[in-house]
Parts: sequence; structure tokens; C-alpha cells
Amino acid sequence: MPIAATLSAGPASSGTSRRHSVGRAIGEAFDARRFGENTDTVVGKLESYLEDLSVRGLELTDPAALSHAARALMTPESETVAAFDDKKLAAIVDLYLRTGIPVHSPGYMGRQFSGVVPLASVMDLVSSVTNQPSSFYEAAQLPNVAERIMGEELNQFIGWDPGSFAMVTTSGGSLGNLTALLAARNDKFPDYWSAGGSALGGRGTPAIAVGDDAHYSVSRAAGVMGIGEDQIVRLPLNERKQICVEQVRPVLAEAERRGLRVFCMVASAGTTSVGAFDPLDELARVAREKNIWLHVDGAHGASLLVSDKLRERLRGIEKVDSITWDAHKMMFVPAPCTLLFYRNKNKSRGAFRQKASYVFDEEPDIYTELDSGDKNFECTKRPMIMPLWTLWAMYGRKLFAEKIDYLCELTQEAHRVVAEQPDFDNLHVPEANILCFRYRPADLIRGDDIHRLQVAIRNRIKREGNFFISKVNIDGVAALRVVMMNHEVTPEHFRILLGEIRRVGNEIFRGQ
Amino acid sequence: MPIAATLSAGPASSGTSRRHSVGRAIGEAFDARRFGENTDTVVGKLESYLEDLSVRGLELTDPAALSHAARALMTPESETVAAFDDKKLAAIVDLYLRTGIPVHSPGYMGRQFSGVVPLASVMDLVSSVTNQPSSFYEAAQLPNVAERIMGEELNQFIGWDPGSFAMVTTSGGSLGNLTALLAARNDKFPDYWSAGGSALGGRGTPAIAVGDDAHYSVSRAAGVMGIGEDQIVRLPLNERKQICVEQVRPVLAEAERRGLRVFCMVASAGTTSVGAFDPLDELARVAREKNIWLHVDGAHGASLLVSDKLRERLRGIEKVDSITWDAHKMMFVPAPCTLLFYRNKNKSRGAFRQKASYVFDEEPDIYTELDSGDKNFECTKRPMIMPLWTLWAMYGRKLFAEKIDYLCELTQEAHRVVAEQPDFDNLHVPEANILCFRYRPADLIRGDDIHRLQVAIRNRIKREGNFFISKVNIDGVAALRVVMMNHEVTPEHFRILLGEIRRVGNEIFRGQ
Repeated sequence: MPIAATLSAGPASSGTSRRHSVGRAIGEAFDARRFGENTDTVVGKLESYLEDLSVRGLELTDPAALSHAARALMTPESETVAAFDDKKLAAIVDLYLRTGIPVHSPGYMGRQFSGVVPLASVMDLVSSVTNQPSSFYEAAQLPNVAERIMGEELNQFIGWDPGSFAMVTTSGGSLGNLTALLAARNDKFPDYWSAGGSALGGRGTPAIAVGDDAHYSVSRAAGVMGIGEDQIVRLPLNERKQICVEQVRPVLAEAERRGLRVFCMVASAGTTSVGAFDPLDELARVAREKNIWLHVDGAHGASLLVSDKLRERLRGIEKVDSITWDAHKMMFVPAPCTLLFYRNKNKSRGAFRQKASYVFDEEPDIYTELDSGDKNFECTKRPMIMPLWTLWAMYGRKLFAEKIDYLCELTQEAHRVVAEQPDFDNLHVPEANILCFRYRPADLIRGDDIHRLQVAIRNRIKREGNFFISKVNIDGVAALRVVMMNHEVTPEHFRILLGEIRRVGNEIFRGQ
Repeated sequence: MPIAATLSAGPASSGTSRRHSVGRAIGEAFDARRFGENTDTVVGKLESYLEDLSVRGLELTDPAALSHAARALMTPESETVAAFDDKKLAAIVDLYLRTGIPVHSPGYMGRQFSGVVPLASVMDLVSSVTNQPSSFYEAAQLPNVAERIMGEELNQFIGWDPGSFAMVTTSGGSLGNLTALLAARNDKFPDYWSAGGSALGGRGTPAIAVGDDAHYSVSRAAGVMGIGEDQIVRLPLNERKQICVEQVRPVLAEAERRGLRVFCMVASAGTTSVGAFDPLDELARVAREKNIWLHVDGAHGASLLVSDKLRERLRGIEKVDSITWDAHKMMFVPAPCTLLFYRNKNKSRGAFRQKASYVFDEEPDIYTELDSGDKNFECTKRPMIMPLWTLWAMYGRKLFAEKIDYLCELTQEAHRVVAEQPDFDNLHVPEANILCFRYRPADLIRGDDIHRLQVAIRNRIKREGNFFISKVNIDGVAALRVVMMNHEVTPEHFRILLGEIRRVGNEIFRGQ
């Protein structure tokens, strides 16, 4: 390559006498040593943040006050690029950390997002600096290979023939669900993509059957896709909040009578509200019988597949058509990192169809074969697989399995603790790491009083700032909800939380 | 808060005698000092990476060989969590950096993704460790405030009344375009969300008019939304590859005669192929006259608004209904960071509609007022605004304006350089930082020969690995395309590239 010598000796590399060049300030902003110094500043603060295992919830700040504080850190408009200021960077990071939700604290039991394994963030930093979009092999070679490897690794616990399935990454579970539902729609109604919904004639109105507790992104997808939210057929739940298998056939038959053509059924592997797992095996039988696409929203619970103890919850997973799996939930990597699996790899090409000469090469080759641009929504996609693959490569499956096992055991223990309390009601037997319950003093009987008390408790607990928990409506009545995402939480923390709830609940109940 | 004392003295914090606890390996994987050491390893490599300004393209590796190399770095399945191995981390990062597209090298002129300002990645690291989803104020307070501030800051260059508009962040330009088109569809067809496309009666088939060079995500959105790709009405371009204003009314009238009801028009501010800016002022007049929603895909070019010299390219921007603006392109932050602006903030609530008690609070308050979960696709959304706001707060607008000005000047200079060459053809006058041209030796006349030569040149240039450029079809014939995203590129680099193209082109032309 003789050109290399020409180039390195050329005026471009001398750097001093360029006729066309940007101002010095730009060069300084891109300076490598500056980057090193900045990471030092920030990493020091992040180390302290990670070390702080004090029990705390959220410090909720008035947005107007926070906005004022943030504005005070901004450089006023000036004639030139402002100089870098290390003190300002430190102040921004301090403000960010102080006002954030403390996902690494044992007081955090509130939601399904988790404190990440720090190594995942370190790899995320590499992705951030190199900024390669991973929808195309040539732009991000290792991420594309890592996607294929992680697909193969995780498929060991699904159980499809290697080579027959497909996995694509996408930006979040909602987008994963939409993508799968599009593949289903286009598979069952091949003209829908080009002709649109208004051109469909005669054979029934397309409809989607979903468990009554499905994530809101599923009915939202029906609205997005032109199916219409009214064409969501709700499958009733049993007392464990799973889709009630006995009622599926009657409900589908009734939908058919109403002129609906159910082309897709959505089951949950870990519902958002209580973490229930729908009976995949039985649902797959119905789906096959009726030629319906079966999609599993495993955003929360698919990760249980990597645990030898818990895999059984997803019995029948190998019979479904597609699976959404959020690694940013129970695989403890930075969000978003959603994996979308298809049993039949050919169907994965059906979600989108179009031509675009500047991105899709005319003739596929060994390189473009790995491109995912025609299979995922994004044109520019973050190489979200890299943190996950790095953890998997470094620590192996056991890192995930051990933590997941602990979190689910902890939740069962919490369930036992609630059962011991006369003034608390358990609402379900936890299948995963989510537990919903209510505080109910003996003389509180009316449904709307119970509802209001839980909402008030949750809000006061949040405001007091020792714990962060969430609430959810179950059968129309509010319940308190903990999601165990943090291995620093112990049953003792949970007992203290119950004590807090009792104290606060009594204060509210007595009008204090 | 008396609870704090109880908690810090409790068994939970003593850490040694917990009955329920995870294995030691988990604790080690989450260790703060380990995190510090890992960042040291990685940051050192990233500094060298950023310092390496040698001219280089892409080293394309056989996916099978790369897969083998990646597999060799993985820990085999074992009984326990594998120990951390610093050498392995170093090897993974080396492999990642070596096989990546060198966005910081002056040889990179290929695509619209850019080398980021390193400070943006430093802030991205904080977001990655704290892992707060930013669709809800309580989960990510500063990011939500920063979104509002950046909306206000950037609106200074759009020009809407403060308080009347809305801005939401979303994961990429394709999703930004879909979200805006959904808002348009639901605005013009209020029943579409619930009833679906098949229930529409009588008043014409919904259709979307787009410039003939619109990004593929726009027609894809029509397929996604149930409108149907066939209902894309293409607006012809003028010789500058902008929507030809004179032809808009006739084309819309013809569509109406065919039974189409065009509810939305999509203009580009910086087309993907050549970086052309559609005449927004004139299009807005037509749109208002016909009660059509005007969306601007400014994924690439909206950033020119921050430049005093270049803002004029977007004349009329204040008259449009919505704008997609990718900060991860010309604002030099990690992808994705897409800003979606709506002129009328109430319309921003129209893209999605549904209830979900566990996310949307029953009664909005000063906190939930900042939530964006009902306005963006994502439930879990990365706080993508933080890198952008941090750069803006630290360096001010001029950082972006100076770099953008330089890149656009550089592209004009490249255009002059091409004009000087007898064996090269310019295909357009560049309006931004994208230039398309062809190598055409005097005796090459036939269209398909010209096409094949450009494709072959691009592929060989890529394979030789000194430069990375792209290709695009213009009027059905391939062209070479450079996108100037890197301020380290000078006209001298571009001259050397042309020499390379000439040498390679001649070799191919003579069958070597």
C-alpha cells in the first residue's frame, strides 16, 4: 500500500500549515488527553456512587428548581467556543447522580430497570466513542458477529435447530413487540404492507388476541399498525394472572363470530404487573391448530431461561413463533438491549420490505449476509449487543443465573414475610421477582378505600425517600408492588419496608 | 428521618452475616474498584484510538474468521461464575477497535455517522452506569429537565413561541419519522387509532406525499402504519434534487383524482443521497392551503439551523408541523439521539393513545407533566439528551456551528476540486456536507457501463482500505458519494482520494 507513505508525509498530517482547517477550539474538544482527564473526573464520582450502598429512595426535586440549577451550569452564548471547565463537568455529574433514581441502592425495589454490571458500561463506553451503527456488517463487524454468537448461545435454552432461527437486536421491548407483530401481520396478510389496511376485503377484520395483563406496548402496536386498538381481543386470566387456557378457544370462537380474524396471539413471559408466565405449551397448541402466529413478550421474564432452576417457567418456548427478550432488564446491561427471536429465520425478513440503494447492497455476499437493516426498525442502531456479549464472554452464563436465582428466591421469601403479617394481603404467588400486595388494617373493607390507601402509601413512601416502590392496579384496585432487581436487597430490607408501610399506612388511615 | 439510623445499623448493612445473599462472584462483578480498573484499561486504549489520525479506511474481515476470533475470547461453560480477566478485556477491546469503522480517521468520508465529541461519551458513560429510563420524570429528573432546556435552546433557531411547541427524544430518525406520521394520521383520521385502517369508509384512501428522494424510513412508515407503501405519492425533484414546487399541486390533484386522500407531506432538510434541502416555505404554503400535515425529515440537515451562515437553507421551518432532527449526525453525539419537534404541543400527544396504570399516573402533577412516555414510542428510553445537553452547556452553540461550517465549506471546496478534473463529473452543487460525483474517462459513455464502473471503484477503494466512501444511485445510475463528518479531513485528503479513484478506475476500466 504505497499510498500510506504518501499520505503520512502529506500536508494533511503535518497539521500545522493547513489552508482549510477548523478553529483550535474544535481540536481541543476532540483531544484524546482531554478525554482521559474527563473520564478520570467522572469515573471517580461513579466509583463513589457504586460504593454507596446506603438504603435510600428518590429525592424528588421540583422541575422548576432543577431547571434553574441546570441553566446555571450552562455557558452563556458567546462569540467563540467556550473553554472546557472541569469544575462545571464535576457539577453536572454531581447533579445528575444526586437527582437520579438510585438503582444500586437496596432501597430501590421500584421498577424493572436495574443497576448494570459495571463492566457492561465500560464496554458501552467503547461503543459510544467509536459510534458505529450496527445494522450493517461493514460498519460494525464485531457487534454483528457478537449478535450472531449471542443468538446461538441463548438459543441453547430455547432449543431451536441452529441455523433455522434468527435473532435481531432492537431499541427496547416496545419496538421488539411491534416488529414481531408486523412480521405476523405481513405473514398472514401478504398484501397489507403495500396495499394498506383499507384495501382488505371480505375475509374478516384483522385482530390480535392478548392476555388481559399484556404490556401496554402490545395494544399500542395494534394502534400503530393500523389494526386498531378495538381489534384487541382480551384473553381472560386465571387466579394466578396467567392466560386461562380453558377460555382461549371460546374467546377466539366468539371473536370469529363477531367478524374478527385473529392472526396473532400475544402471551407474556413475566407480565409487567405481577410477573406471571402464560402457559406457552398449551397456547402453542391452540395457535398451531388455528394457524395463528404466537408471539411471546418475554421482555421481563425470558432471562429466566438461563437459569437451570427457573427455565421450566417457559415450558413450550420452542413452539412459539417469536420472542421479545430485554437484556436490559434481567441481564443487567445498559438500556436498551432488546433481543427479538424468530423460530423461522425467513419470517424475520417479513417485518419490513423496501429498497434503498444507499444502504442495501445489490447482491448479498458473505458480509452483507449479516446485515440486519432489513430486519430491524433502525437504520442507525447502537451496537447494543456488545455489553451483553462482553459479560457473557467474561463471566459466563452463571453470572446471570446466580443473580436471577437469588432475586427470585428473595421474592418468594418476601411473599412468606407478607403472609406472616395479619394486616397485609398477598395478591399472588410470585413466579419471578415481582411481588404485589396490599396493606389492609382490619377495619378497612371497602374497595375504593383500600385503593386510595395504597396510592397514598406509595406516594408518601416515595416522598419520605427511604425506599422506592411502585404501584399497580390489580382487578381495578391499587396494590403496592416491589420488583427485586438488586442483589443488595435482603429479606431484612423488605421487613423494614413493611414496617415503614405499616407506620405510614396507619398515619394516613388515621388522617395524620 | 429516624429510619435512616435504624437502617444503617441494621443487619442489612453489616454485610457479613446475611442469611440470604448472593455468591461472592456477583459482588466482585459489581465492585466499584474493579469498575475503576476496567475503565483505566479501556480509556487508555480509547486515547490511543482517538490519537491515531492516520488515513485509513476499513479492514473488512471474513465474518467466519472474526467469529472464530470472538469465540476464542469466550469463557467455556463452567460450574461457577468465571473470574474476571483483564487480558481478556484488553483483547476484546483491541478486536473491537481494530475491526471497527474508523470514524475519527481522515480516510473516513463514507456515511452520515460521525466521530463524537469525546466529552459526549463521557457523559454517556454516566447514563450507562446509572441506567435511568428517561420517559418518566421521577426515574430520570435531570434528563427530563435537560430535554426541555434543549428544546427551548434549539427552538431559538426554529422560531416558535416558547410554550407552544413540544420536543421529545426518540431512538433514531426512522422512529422519529414514524412517530410524527402517526401524529399526523391520528390528527387527520381521529378514528384510525381505535378502529383501524379497514374501518375507514368513503372519504378516500389515506396517502402520504414525499419527495422522490425521501429516506427509506418514510415509505417504510407507510407500510408499518397500515397506510400501505402503494399509497406513497412521489413528488418529482428539480435538477438540484429538491422537491419541484411547480409540480406539487398537479401531483396532489392527480392523486386526489385517483381516490387518494393525501393527509401528510414529507419534505427533507438534507436528503440522504445528496444532502438537498426542500423548499419549506413554498411547501408550507401548499400544505396550509390543502390542510395537509407537513413533516420535515431533518435527520441529517436540521443541525444546520445552529449555524448563522447555513440556517437560511431551512427557510420556512417555522411553518411546518413536525421536524425530525438527529443530533447523532451533525451534532456529534453518540447514536441514537433523535429530537422530534412539534409546532403545536397538543398534537404531540396524538401519536399514541392508551391507558396503563403502572406507568401513567392518574392525575398529572408538576412532576408527571414532564413525562414523555405518552409521547414517545419507548417505555424504557435511554437518557439520550445528556451528552448533547452537556456539550451545549460546556462549549455553547459555537462548537457545533464552527464544525458544521467547516464541513460544509470543505464540501464546497471538494466540489470545486471535482470541477477541475476533466475525467470526473459533478452531479449537484452541494448544499450541505454530502457530495456525489462520478469518475468517467472520456471514452465511457453508456449508462450501465458508467454504473458498473462506479460500483466497482467503490468496492475496490473499500477493499484497499485507505479510504471509506459510499455509493448511491442517482437517476438510476451509481455515483460515488462522500459525506464530510470529520473536521480532520482537508481538501488535500480529498485530492488524494480522487487520485486513488482515478488509478483504481483506470485499472478496472482496462480490465486489470
